[in-house]
Amino acid sequence: MNQLTIVKIGGNIVENEVKLGQFLKSFAKLEGNKILVHGGGKEATSLAERLGVPSKYVDGRRVTDEEMLKLVVMVYGGLINKRIVALLQKEGCNAIGLTGADGNAIQAVKRKPGKVDYGFVGDVTSDGVNTDLMYTLLQKGFVPVLAPLTHDMAGNMLNTNADTIAQEVARACAKENRVVLVYGFEKSGVLLDVNDEASVIPVLKADEFKRLKEEKLIYDGMIPKLENAFAAVAAGVEKIIIGNAEELEALVNGASGTQIV
Amino acid sequence: MNQLTIVKIGGNIVENEVKLGQFLKSFAKLEGNKILVHGGGKEATSLAERLGVPSKYVDGRRVTDEEMLKLVVMVYGGLINKRIVALLQKEGCNAIGLTGADGNAIQAVKRKPGKVDYGFVGDVTSDGVNTDLMYTLLQKGFVPVLAPLTHDMAGNMLNTNADTIAQEVARACAKENRVVLVYGFEKSGVLLDVNDEASVIPVLKADEFKRLKEEKLIYDGMIPKLENAFAAVAAGVEKIIIGNAEELEALVNGASGTQIV
Repeated sequence: MNQLTIVKIGGNIVENEVKLGQFLKSFAKLEGNKILVHGGGKEATSLAERLGVPSKYVDGRRVTDEEMLKLVVMVYGGLINKRIVALLQKEGCNAIGLTGADGNAIQAVKRKPGKVDYGFVGDVTSDGVNTDLMYTLLQKGFVPVLAPLTHDMAGNMLNTNADTIAQEVARACAKENRVVLVYGFEKSGVLLDVNDEASVIPVLKADEFKRLKEEKLIYDGMIPKLENAFAAVAAGVEKIIIGNAEELEALVNGASGTQIV
Repeated sequence: MNQLTIVKIGGNIVENEVKLGQFLKSFAKLEGNKILVHGGGKEATSLAERLGVPSKYVDGRRVTDEEMLKLVVMVYGGLINKRIVALLQKEGCNAIGLTGADGNAIQAVKRKPGKVDYGFVGDVTSDGVNTDLMYTLLQKGFVPVLAPLTHDMAGNMLNTNADTIAQEVARACAKENRVVLVYGFEKSGVLLDVNDEASVIPVLKADEFKRLKEEKLIYDGMIPKLENAFAAVAAGVEKIIIGNAEELEALVNGASGTQIV
C-alpha cells in the first residue's frame, strides 16, 4: 500500500500571511503522496460583517443561511483556496484546489433540521469521497488542496467542517493506502493542562481518552476533534497526529504533537 | 487528432439563474471533449459596491488593485466557478473548476504599467497554458471549467480577460486537437446592423472583417473579440463561432451564429 499524508490546517494559520507561507514551505517539502485540507476561519465572518450579513453560531458551529453560503463559497473556495494553491505553486508543489463539487470530489446531504437548523451544512455521504479522483490526481503528481465545501449532486454547494472533510477523506483513502492524518492547529498537541504547552500527551489511546474525558481534563473544543480521530483510527487510518501546524516536519517525524494510534 | 470544443460564456448568462441552467443543460449534452471558460460580470462589481471598494475601468477593462483582486478571486474563482461546477455535476457532467493556479493551468505575467496601469492583470505567457493538465483531465472524462484568473508562479493570482483565456487555451490545444471555439454572448452573432438581430453574418473571413472595420460597420466591443478570433484561426484553431449562448446546439451545428474560418 502507498503512504498518504493528509494534513488539515485551521483558520488561525490560513489568515496569517507569514505563518501560512512558512507552513506551506514545509508542506511542499513533505515526501510522498499528500493532500491538504484547509479550514475557513475569520475571513468569512469579517466579510459578512462588512456586508452587514449576521454570523450565527450554535455550539461553535456556523449556521449557514443562503447569504452566508455564498460568502463561504467565495471565501473558502475562492480567496483562501487559491491563496494556498498559488503559494504552493510558488514552492514547486503542483497543487490543485478542489471543493466537493469539483470532479465530484465529495458528496454530501444537507443536514436535516433537528433541535438546531444549521442551514446549508453538508454531512458527507457514506461513499461520498471520490477516491478515484484523489488517486488519479496523486498518480499524476498533483497535490489536492481541499476547501471545506461539499455538494449535493443537485446543484447546491454545502458547508462542511474541515476536520470532518479531513477525517472522511482519510477514512476513504485508508482502504488502499497507509494514511497518516495530521491535524495542525495552534497548540503543541493534546495538553493535560490547557495552559501549559509543555503538558503535551505524546501518545493517546482510546481508554486513556475515555478516562481524561470522564475526569474533564480535556477541554471542550478538543473533544469532537479527538472523537473524530479515534473514529478514523477505528476505520483503518494508520496514525493521527495532532499538534502545532508550525512544526509540521517534527509532527510527521513523531518529534512533536500527540499521536493517536 | 481529437475534436475539442471550447465554449466561452460571459457575465450576462452567468448571472441569470434560468439562462445559466438552460445553457449548462445544453453544454452538458455536447459530445466529445470540451472545456468551458466563464467570464465574471457584474457580481464582482456589485460586491465591491456593497463593500465600498471603488470599481475602475479604462477602455472597458477593469483596473484590478489589490482589494479588487481579492474580490475577483472570490467571485470568479469561488462563487461563479463553483455555481457552474455544481450545476454541471447535477447534469451528469463531471466538471472540475480551475483557476490558472490550479495544477498550474495557466501562467501569466503581471502586465507592466504603460499609459494605463491595469494593476493585477495577467498576460498569459507564450507557453503558459498547461495542455498536459487539460489532456490528463479530458482523458479521464473530466470537463475543465476555467475561471478568468491566472497566476504568476510567484504566489500571486492575476485577473485575465475570459475571452483571452479561451483564445489562449484554444491556440495551445490546437497543436494536438481539432479545436472549435465558441464565443457565446447575448447577440445572435456578428451583426451588420447592431440593432437588427437578423443581420447576422453567417461566415466572416479576414478580408471582409478588414473592410467592415474600415467602413466602421463593426461596433467597438466586437473588434477585440474578432481580432482575437482571427489571431486564433491564424494560429491553427479550426473554427470559431460567435453567437447567442442560449442557442449552443445550433451554434455548434452551424445553424446559428457567425463562423470565423
